[in-house]
Amino acid sequence: MSIALCVPDRNINLFIQELKDHLTSEEIFTDLNEATNENVEVAILWNHPPGTISSFPNLKLICSFGAGVDHILSDPEYNPSILVTRIVDEHLTESMSRYVVAAVSMFQYGFHFMRDDNSRKINLKKALSATKLTIGILGLGALGANAASRCRDLGYEVFGLSRKKKNIQDVHTFGRNEMEAFLSETNILVCMLPLTSETEDIINYELLQKLKSPAFFINVGRGGHVNEHDLLKALKDQILTGACLDVVKNEPIAIDDPIASEPKIIITPHIASITNQENAARIIAENIGRFKKRKELLYQADPGAGY
Amino acid sequence: MSIALCVPDRNINLFIQELKDHLTSEEIFTDLNEATNENVEVAILWNHPPGTISSFPNLKLICSFGAGVDHILSDPEYNPSILVTRIVDEHLTESMSRYVVAAVSMFQYGFHFMRDDNSRKINLKKALSATKLTIGILGLGALGANAASRCRDLGYEVFGLSRKKKNIQDVHTFGRNEMEAFLSETNILVCMLPLTSETEDIINYELLQKLKSPAFFINVGRGGHVNEHDLLKALKDQILTGACLDVVKNEPIAIDDPIASEPKIIITPHIASITNQENAARIIAENIGRFKKRKELLYQADPGAGY
Repeated sequence: MSIALCVPDRNINLFIQELKDHLTSEEIFTDLNEATNENVEVAILWNHPPGTISSFPNLKLICSFGAGVDHILSDPEYNPSILVTRIVDEHLTESMSRYVVAAVSMFQYGFHFMRDDNSRKINLKKALSATKLTIGILGLGALGANAASRCRDLGYEVFGLSRKKKNIQDVHTFGRNEMEAFLSETNILVCMLPLTSETEDIINYELLQKLKSPAFFINVGRGGHVNEHDLLKALKDQILTGACLDVVKNEPIAIDDPIASEPKIIITPHIASITNQENAARIIAENIGRFKKRKELLYQADPGAGY
Repeated sequence: MSIALCVPDRNINLFIQELKDHLTSEEIFTDLNEATNENVEVAILWNHPPGTISSFPNLKLICSFGAGVDHILSDPEYNPSILVTRIVDEHLTESMSRYVVAAVSMFQYGFHFMRDDNSRKINLKKALSATKLTIGILGLGALGANAASRCRDLGYEVFGLSRKKKNIQDVHTFGRNEMEAFLSETNILVCMLPLTSETEDIINYELLQKLKSPAFFINVGRGGHVNEHDLLKALKDQILTGACLDVVKNEPIAIDDPIASEPKIIITPHIASITNQENAARIIAENIGRFKKRKELLYQADPGAGY
């Protein structure tokens, strides 16, 4: 059995070294031209190019190199009989929560516009003390639930919505059919959903209109969640006061992208949660071991649900 | 016995109502012209004008309306035989920590400069992933210790210095004689000291020079802690990358103050921790009750130590 690794445009030497230390008896190919494709039963993928999955006729397990599996499940070459796992890692979760807290705090304290002109610096008192912003976390998986808890710990009022209604202490939670009530309580909407056919373009003008004013939007999900034309229009129409995007439809974003030149949008280059290479190697090696022994896998994706 | 209340330029109707509810049998004067000054044994003060303390010849207890007591102890009319108490309140502490987390996060993610030009938005990846900033909390009283813990909970590496070295789980602590070691580990310095003759102008060029690069400064203490000329020079000389000030020497800051026009400084108008009026009334009423029964006071200041 061989393992093929395809994580382009990224220095993952530490991951490869750690994986080899864990899996001493396996053949691991980092240069796919060297692999005998028929022998590859396991692939480790992130942002793989078209043609990758179909080149391995006997593929049985794909391990995502990150928390998301949308790049695998949405690939037309993917066949639902292939098992898929993702990374759930405390470091990745904490890194994501740290970013969400940072973006929420920026909007709460008005740091995003405080350098625009000096008079604002001085006349902020009224604006700042008038509004304590509420936070609405859309998607309460491992990442969303942790971010909700961290914001709550800091004294923010937090709402959360998930497909199945969840219980998180001192967080007001909603089920999928309660979207309107959830949005009407939310000033700062944080998208932490998995990307599926059901959640694609979910952030559109109609949804943003239902937020509590002043409204802000933070995206740490996927660029595919957002109708970017609608987002720009909502900012222009002052439905939305500001946005902070760690992910966009076209990454890396081009300098002439209308999203990049909109001053009400703060953009970061997909850094909210970066896979910890040592932990990823440990988790993927564990799953490959379980796969060989036909044991239950960790963090297995459900192709039916889409994540 | 009468109680005099002097908290100018602030709507404290809720506080007064709550205090009267707690202290039904006391005379409380909010208009000092109406008080018979000889009968006043207790004063509740915040930003009181000169002449206030000396106008009450039989004053025995001063209750500060906030966490700080520097406005009382530094008043030349203050006589150290007068007891002084301050407010220690969980809401005030949490509000302060929320602000510290916000300011630290802004510098960690570069949100403070992300609207300066579009190319920065796009080329941030390297800069952001290169440096994980450490936090150094100067002053580990009730407020400083809580802020240190909150930052630690979010995964930041936190250092702390106090007069007497303290133990806080997973925070690297230093005593007063270890300032150089503390500064050399710190990227983001947060001033949370009480203002005393010993800490006045403590933030000067020489101190800022000892911080780990890139260095940032956050002040949630008092304007009096900072030599503002040195702060501006440190920013100009690129010793310091940015600063976030909730307090300045002259409040409210004037539009032509050099601090207000320096783009590397983010200013907020003393909003990091605002006294919760209900809690303040409860704590002050409790202390007035204890004072009458000659019991030990809560949160008593030590005029010798200066806080």
